[in-house]
Amino acid sequence: MEFSSKLLEKAVNEMAQLPGIGKRTSLRLVLHLLKQPKEHTGFLVQALTSMREEVKFCVSCHNISDVAVCEICSNTKRDHQIICVVEDIRDVMAIENTGQFRGIYHVLGGKISPIDGVGPSQLNINSLVEKVKTGNVSEIIFALSSTMEGDTTNFYIFKQIQDCDIITSTIARGISVGDELEYADEVTLGRSILQRVPFEKSFKG
Amino acid sequence: MEFSSKLLEKAVNEMAQLPGIGKRTSLRLVLHLLKQPKEHTGFLVQALTSMREEVKFCVSCHNISDVAVCEICSNTKRDHQIICVVEDIRDVMAIENTGQFRGIYHVLGGKISPIDGVGPSQLNINSLVEKVKTGNVSEIIFALSSTMEGDTTNFYIFKQIQDCDIITSTIARGISVGDELEYADEVTLGRSILQRVPFEKSFKG
Ligand SMILES: [Zn+2]
Ligand SMILES: [Zn+2]
Repeated sequence: MEFSSKLLEKAVNEMAQLPGIGKRTSLRLVLHLLKQPKEHTGFLVQALTSMREEVKFCVSCHNISDVAVCEICSNTKRDHQIICVVEDIRDVMAIENTGQFRGIYHVLGGKISPIDGVGPSQLNINSLVEKVKTGNVSEIIFALSSTMEGDTTNFYIFKQIQDCDIITSTIARGISVGDELEYADEVTLGRSILQRVPFEKSFKG
Repeated sequence: MEFSSKLLEKAVNEMAQLPGIGKRTSLRLVLHLLKQPKEHTGFLVQALTSMREEVKFCVSCHNISDVAVCEICSNTKRDHQIICVVEDIRDVMAIENTGQFRGIYHVLGGKISPIDGVGPSQLNINSLVEKVKTGNVSEIIFALSSTMEGDTTNFYIFKQIQDCDIITSTIARGISVGDELEYADEVTLGRSILQRVPFEKSFKG
């Protein structure tokens, strides 16, 4: 692609760094900004900068938050004894959207994946194990995608907390194996929370 | 979509203003930035800001440029008597990429489209007509997409310059009717430049 402007080329190349955005798409997006009033680019740039610089992660559950302790963790009406373990904040949003869960969350920030070079130490696992060992936790619900990496991660955590006096469960396999959690329909996802099964049963098949 | 952070929500909403970017895609892109080091967002933001604030349009052909007169217009080896009229700078890039054209361009900045509220006065048409009437132009090649709007725009311009002693042509219809110019393959697009036909013939069918 030959650009008549270095400024344009640089903007297109930076935008094309985003996942799933190719050079052509990037050019289309950048030219769109160029056709709009300058304020539009200003708003976008300001929103991205503020988000990246100021956004916090909840000190308790690692969910994205504007304050130190997120709204869910600071909500006394929720059951703090039941912790739903998820990969990503999108999964929190998806489960919250079903209205079926009144416990709290723990966001791991990924799944164990040797291929991608992600080991347990890069995930928020230690803080979960500590919470289980020292806190008043009655149940851990594993809500990771049912993929190889998800199962590995569940099992890794389970091994570290299996001696604790708590219930461990996984969301029901109403969600197709291999599908990403965040794209599941509300009803299926809501049911999978209600019909969670004991963890021991889930990996024995 | 329920967000746990206003900063995140605002960034997602701003990104979702871009054409073809829905809320889910926007969230994916924003969370990607959040996982990357802060510099990545900085680079993107800086590139977009510089582009939007500093990019210029060539005073002669209206192509995007970092200087007042673009590289093509200031290239004395090109034939300044042959002007290829295009809708968009992406079309300049596409035609340049074929290596088949040694004239210069005139970027209209759109097509006449009453439905979208785009009239002739919003496009760079007057400067083209003036150039034809006062300058040393021997040929005008219309290279707009062969859509209703493209044909209307061609015809509108043709009516204003038909009394001038120049050749008018359109690129050959090797490109499928209704297809966007920028997505044509190089060979077809290159041939359509070489096999351009007299304008009078093109709209008589
Ligand atoms: Zn929290
Ligand atoms: Zn120029």
